[in-house]
Amino acid sequence: MATRGTLFLIPCPIAEEALATIPEDTRQRMAPITCFLAEDLRSARRYLSSLKIFPSIEALRLDVLDKKTKPPELPALLQPLHDGKDVGVLSESGCPGVADPGALAAAYAHQHGFRVVPLVGPSSLLLALMASGLNGQRFAFHGYLPIDAKEAAKTIRALEAESRANQQTQLFIETPYRNNTVFSFLLKNLHPDTWLHVSIDVTGSGQQCQTLRVREWRNQPATWPKLPAVYLFLAS
Amino acid sequence: MATRGTLFLIPCPIAEEALATIPEDTRQRMAPITCFLAEDLRSARRYLSSLKIFPSIEALRLDVLDKKTKPPELPALLQPLHDGKDVGVLSESGCPGVADPGALAAAYAHQHGFRVVPLVGPSSLLLALMASGLNGQRFAFHGYLPIDAKEAAKTIRALEAESRANQQTQLFIETPYRNNTVFSFLLKNLHPDTWLHVSIDVTGSGQQCQTLRVREWRNQPATWPKLPAVYLFLAS
Repeated sequence: MATRGTLFLIPCPIAEEALATIPEDTRQRMAPITCFLAEDLRSARRYLSSLKIFPSIEALRLDVLDKKTKPPELPALLQPLHDGKDVGVLSESGCPGVADPGALAAAYAHQHGFRVVPLVGPSSLLLALMASGLNGQRFAFHGYLPIDAKEAAKTIRALEAESRANQQTQLFIETPYRNNTVFSFLLKNLHPDTWLHVSIDVTGSGQQCQTLRVREWRNQPATWPKLPAVYLFLAS
Repeated sequence: MATRGTLFLIPCPIAEEALATIPEDTRQRMAPITCFLAEDLRSARRYLSSLKIFPSIEALRLDVLDKKTKPPELPALLQPLHDGKDVGVLSESGCPGVADPGALAAAYAHQHGFRVVPLVGPSSLLLALMASGLNGQRFAFHGYLPIDAKEAAKTIRALEAESRANQQTQLFIETPYRNNTVFSFLLKNLHPDTWLHVSIDVTGSGQQCQTLRVREWRNQPATWPKLPAVYLFLAS
């Protein structure tokens, strides 16, 4: 049988300055790879270059895999696997395949019988969950809240009811410029006794991780910077 | 105001041989810590010693925080924080606070106004999710399945219905000696079209990550080794 490539899922730093959050094991396994898929080629090149493990960044094959990529484009993007070459999927921030389009490449690889290997690195969702002190035995990630205030209120209340019924920690993310809006939605719609955690700029110089009851947050008005945030809550 | 300690949540390798999955950033932030909480003191000492960043392991304060720890014991265990010393919470495997008792310490720290800092390291749940190619925009972790076959069947079917309704990836773990039992429960009760992923011994030498439809798994009988496993499924 001909040599078949392996697909590697490769994390990158969440905060650009935090290159030391990428383990030696991940660096060593990346070093022989010559074909990469990434959401943004410019930031992918900058990351690969900063690792100082590749003799030449220009010699690497980099292709775009982003949210606009359609399944019919995958055979061409992943042709190197069929040619016996390993392919690395990079995330724009944190872990590929978690709240990003990298999962498409992994699904393709499984459907065509290629080996898939995930590498270790930072995940803002997981770091926020660790920091929260909330229930880590049962949790769910829901992506983004609806933008419309009424729809957001409906979603928040439904998820709080589910959290109360199952003691399930609920996780969300938000784009940085909407942090204060989303936080106000949460304070307005959650029960005063519910635990609410906010992690801002995880692994970065502006990192803040705090858990308080909703009633305590209401007494301690917070203004959040325009930095990546993860929100968690658990009904008590 | 007196100096107050910081609580660090510290991952450890999932597979004992994979020490290189612990990033330099995590090592550097651990090095000044002198007080640790861990589920098992013997394996915690072995891990701390293997890092070669502490002049003397005997000089460190190590206390047990495990599933038998009750909230009234926390003030004594976390007294170093009040004394201005940093405390590190170690997991037995992977990330503390995620499917382990470390969350108790983080909750205590938040309730008493101490800073909480999560450090980067391996998580079998997150690595399995990355490797699966299943929906990483929406997922939930449910801990262990019920042991009783009838109860397990009920849970699997309810979670499959929820997965179908919300396109939510469902995650479980299992103790290694029950892998083949749980896998047979999943094959028996899931719809033939449902995607089922198994990750075994993530980061270890026996690592296997595979996603197939239930009907394909049924045609390709698998016997799993007694190694830690994560199961994911997504109804299609």
